[in-house]
Amino acid sequence: MIQPVVNIAEICALKGVEQVVLSPGSRCAPLTIAFARHPKLTVRTVSDERAAAFIALGMALTSGKPTVLVCTSGTAALNYAPAVAEAYFQEVPLLVLTADRPPEWIDQLDGQTIRQQNVFGQHIKKSYTFPVDLAHPDAVWQSERQISEALNEAMAYPAGPVHINVPLREPFYPAPGTELKYDSTVKIIEEEPQAYQLTEFQSLRLQQEIMKYKRVVVLAGHMQQDLRLLQRIKAFADTTGAILVGDVISNTHTLDQAVRYQDIIFANTDQNTLAQLQPDLLISFGKSTISKALKLYLRKHKPNAHWHVQPAGQVADTFQSLTKIIRCTPYSFFASMAGSTKNEASFVKAWEQSTQAASAFLQKYAGKQQYNELTLVAMVLEQLPKQSKLHLANSMSVRYANIAGLMPEQEVEVYANRGTSGIDGSNSTAVGCALTSQSTVTLLTGDLAFFYDRNGLWHNYLPPNLRIVLLNNHAGGIFRLIDGPKQQPELEPYFETKQALDAQNTARDFNLNYTAVHTFSELQKALPAFFAKDNGAAILEIFTDNASNAADFEQYRQAVRALALG
Amino acid sequence: MIQPVVNIAEICALKGVEQVVLSPGSRCAPLTIAFARHPKLTVRTVSDERAAAFIALGMALTSGKPTVLVCTSGTAALNYAPAVAEAYFQEVPLLVLTADRPPEWIDQLDGQTIRQQNVFGQHIKKSYTFPVDLAHPDAVWQSERQISEALNEAMAYPAGPVHINVPLREPFYPAPGTELKYDSTVKIIEEEPQAYQLTEFQSLRLQQEIMKYKRVVVLAGHMQQDLRLLQRIKAFADTTGAILVGDVISNTHTLDQAVRYQDIIFANTDQNTLAQLQPDLLISFGKSTISKALKLYLRKHKPNAHWHVQPAGQVADTFQSLTKIIRCTPYSFFASMAGSTKNEASFVKAWEQSTQAASAFLQKYAGKQQYNELTLVAMVLEQLPKQSKLHLANSMSVRYANIAGLMPEQEVEVYANRGTSGIDGSNSTAVGCALTSQSTVTLLTGDLAFFYDRNGLWHNYLPPNLRIVLLNNHAGGIFRLIDGPKQQPELEPYFETKQALDAQNTARDFNLNYTAVHTFSELQKALPAFFAKDNGAAILEIFTDNASNAADFEQYRQAVRALALG
Repeated sequence: MIQPVVNIAEICALKGVEQVVLSPGSRCAPLTIAFARHPKLTVRTVSDERAAAFIALGMALTSGKPTVLVCTSGTAALNYAPAVAEAYFQEVPLLVLTADRPPEWIDQLDGQTIRQQNVFGQHIKKSYTFPVDLAHPDAVWQSERQISEALNEAMAYPAGPVHINVPLREPFYPAPGTELKYDSTVKIIEEEPQAYQLTEFQSLRLQQEIMKYKRVVVLAGHMQQDLRLLQRIKAFADTTGAILVGDVISNTHTLDQAVRYQDIIFANTDQNTLAQLQPDLLISFGKSTISKALKLYLRKHKPNAHWHVQPAGQVADTFQSLTKIIRCTPYSFFASMAGSTKNEASFVKAWEQSTQAASAFLQKYAGKQQYNELTLVAMVLEQLPKQSKLHLANSMSVRYANIAGLMPEQEVEVYANRGTSGIDGSNSTAVGCALTSQSTVTLLTGDLAFFYDRNGLWHNYLPPNLRIVLLNNHAGGIFRLIDGPKQQPELEPYFETKQALDAQNTARDFNLNYTAVHTFSELQKALPAFFAKDNGAAILEIFTDNASNAADFEQYRQAVRALALG
Repeated sequence: MIQPVVNIAEICALKGVEQVVLSPGSRCAPLTIAFARHPKLTVRTVSDERAAAFIALGMALTSGKPTVLVCTSGTAALNYAPAVAEAYFQEVPLLVLTADRPPEWIDQLDGQTIRQQNVFGQHIKKSYTFPVDLAHPDAVWQSERQISEALNEAMAYPAGPVHINVPLREPFYPAPGTELKYDSTVKIIEEEPQAYQLTEFQSLRLQQEIMKYKRVVVLAGHMQQDLRLLQRIKAFADTTGAILVGDVISNTHTLDQAVRYQDIIFANTDQNTLAQLQPDLLISFGKSTISKALKLYLRKHKPNAHWHVQPAGQVADTFQSLTKIIRCTPYSFFASMAGSTKNEASFVKAWEQSTQAASAFLQKYAGKQQYNELTLVAMVLEQLPKQSKLHLANSMSVRYANIAGLMPEQEVEVYANRGTSGIDGSNSTAVGCALTSQSTVTLLTGDLAFFYDRNGLWHNYLPPNLRIVLLNNHAGGIFRLIDGPKQQPELEPYFETKQALDAQNTARDFNLNYTAVHTFSELQKALPAFFAKDNGAAILEIFTDNASNAADFEQYRQAVRALALG
């Protein structure tokens, strides 16, 4: 065993890494052994690298610390790529270590050999090559420095994945009985992060500038729960009357005043009311927005100004209205801006009325307990354990949840892979969250997302705090809900892609509690036991019919369009 | 629907494409509809893009024609990456069409948006961007030319995957009831391929040169069955006494004289005999070699000259002995070289004796019917239907098969993903082979490879001619067989990675016939029904114990080392 390879594990531990996910292989054996034997690291092994990487992502999401991934040479690294891209766009720190053949053996027809340098292309913050010859002391210096640099880079704003390709020559295994020595005096490089604070001068200027706006809307994009920031936003909203709008993935729902009905309000057709809701200043922060109704509304009803608060990095002009980028933390911005302007009362009132109308409509709609996915999701969300975590799979799961919403007193923390919004990896990400959390982690998913990532459950670490709510309509239900595909003859075979599986055999395979639900009363009956703290990992499979879901959803949409908001 | 997008399907059909594998999505809807409606194309949809791409690879392998892949934007393309890399190194033609957002929407926080240009990095023959604006006639010309160019590139030697990224703006769907018009007069570009023939002058020079070698060994690397070539090699060997050595993946086993016991012969320790087998000229063609014993032998006992016959492209120096690259087809080379030299009788005899000794040893070893994976594989291979196809998964499956070997009269065609030798994708590849073949396709696989690619079975096209022989030892058995990991305390948790699944629930999920085997007599009894032509797709799960496999294999290895070859 080469000491600098052993020291990779030590440097990671010294730099605050806690979780390591390995996938088995021989080429990576020196890394495997170095990590597995380290006394301070929690090391697990997951055979499917695609799942392993999403599990690591889930762990980094809940812990806020970089997870280390280790795989062998060859296509293993390529199976990491979907999760690495998600981590890149969702800004989640990962340190990806891929074992490789030494350079002289690339393209020589040896097994499990591809071209691993820069294999993650444009979806990685930085790629490094670990030195293959470590005889010279400068190479050892480089090898140690590189791990510090990579971890610093993974954590620097915006956080994200970094890759170190590690070429390794034989022997891969220490002589039997050899004890590894971790050098705890190895030099690490700490990084005191940039604070991204507004200066007093900048604050004053922005305060003067904002005074001219009297219809201010704050839009929170996708972000993790940040209670400290929410307090500052609350103070800003309380003192200015600013409207706060946030999708369920923005984790603003724990604030009473956060507007959570944008999917209803902006799907409305009452042009009068919609005009009254138009902001003159839009202040946004965070990442993506789900609500298509809101996006289309803002692109059509452009504010006079759109400020986006983002400490660094490329800024998206999601609403085609961006006029100012403000380089500080949202915390610094909102702390500086409390009381800096005052929204018109009529504007505030228009938002209040619309919100109340939407809320009343939704309560009434869900209360009818028509058996369809939207009302079923509403009931599941209502019953989530307090202070639990919710992972929303992509496609319809996250959209239903965004319509149904969460209430402040639930204090539920929401996760969703909206960096790339892929159908892949949601089981694994939820497993990773659950493995690094004491709370219940509920995954809300559909049948396509669930079976796509079945291997997220294929390992020896299924956490007892995991709950999977599976909406099974035996197809990609979204294609019957959106306009376009449903009028095409290709709908069933090529868009919906009917699939016959239910999860009962999967539950058997992985020793998960399993309950099937076909009626509202079955759901009501099942939920308490399903969510009970000590009942262990479980799947609640809710069967619905895709055609009737679609018919109901069309009814719902018509009702929303015609709703009296004012 | 934009006519140039509709014409993509037409050009593909005109250029000989027959098979299309789609994965569902909305962004790719114009492509989906264009392909799905085309009267001459067979179009299937597979939800997991990782599996879809390996299925397409299997189809291209058996058909020899490029398979078209179509996916939506986002991580879908990244899930193709493992199969694309395999296709690149195995030289299998694929046309990968990835729908994308138009350039103005990249990095604007819209869903399912990544950076798709050149997303396959160094593992693609060429990457194109389909024109996004098709108003100008030159753009239409480009759009048509590109499809011809891409398909020509995919088929040109060495064949491989090509990528066209297709940015698409809304609307994605034709108005309900619209009929698509395929323009059958669209211009295509044919390519008359380079013949890669030796000139008469080259042939004469090589004939003169080869005369000085009297210990000629021909080594066939990984390649598909090519009966026409085998006749030329047979004539060369018959007239020169050249020794032909080929792993099971070289598909030379249908020739009587092909040596197929290299895993036994070169694991022997009789230095005297081994010295007698050393070639003075090694002539190789094809891709990789599995037999590690042979590779190590050749690297140690280097021939005086090593000629590699390969029409074009980068040449690997697998045995560290390469002295001459010959740029022609193996067919042209062997056709030119018949009778050009004469091997020493003593050399030929030494090879004959070793081969006979190895063959007798193997027969005796397998005949004892000790219950372990090697003997079980030997029995399964012996019973394969005549003229059927065999797909070998990586890790131990392909290695056992290479030891056990196939007999000429079986006329079995062998496939294996030895381009990257990944554990991923073998179920899917076998499914793709079976979907485009009339013969029985048997997949020989282990539990890790099988469950890794469980989604290869998750679609609506499971072919009745598919047979899966699953060696289930509930772990990555290879790690207990090779030196190194078995002496480490990490063996069980981090290398073998015990896994509890058996395939019974999977068989239930996918309506596959299922038989479990625990003894030799159960296997003997099960095989006839399992292989019977009209019995439908089936899994034969053979349970073994990893520790006893390892103990038996160690015994076997010791017997091989000590075998009297001379």
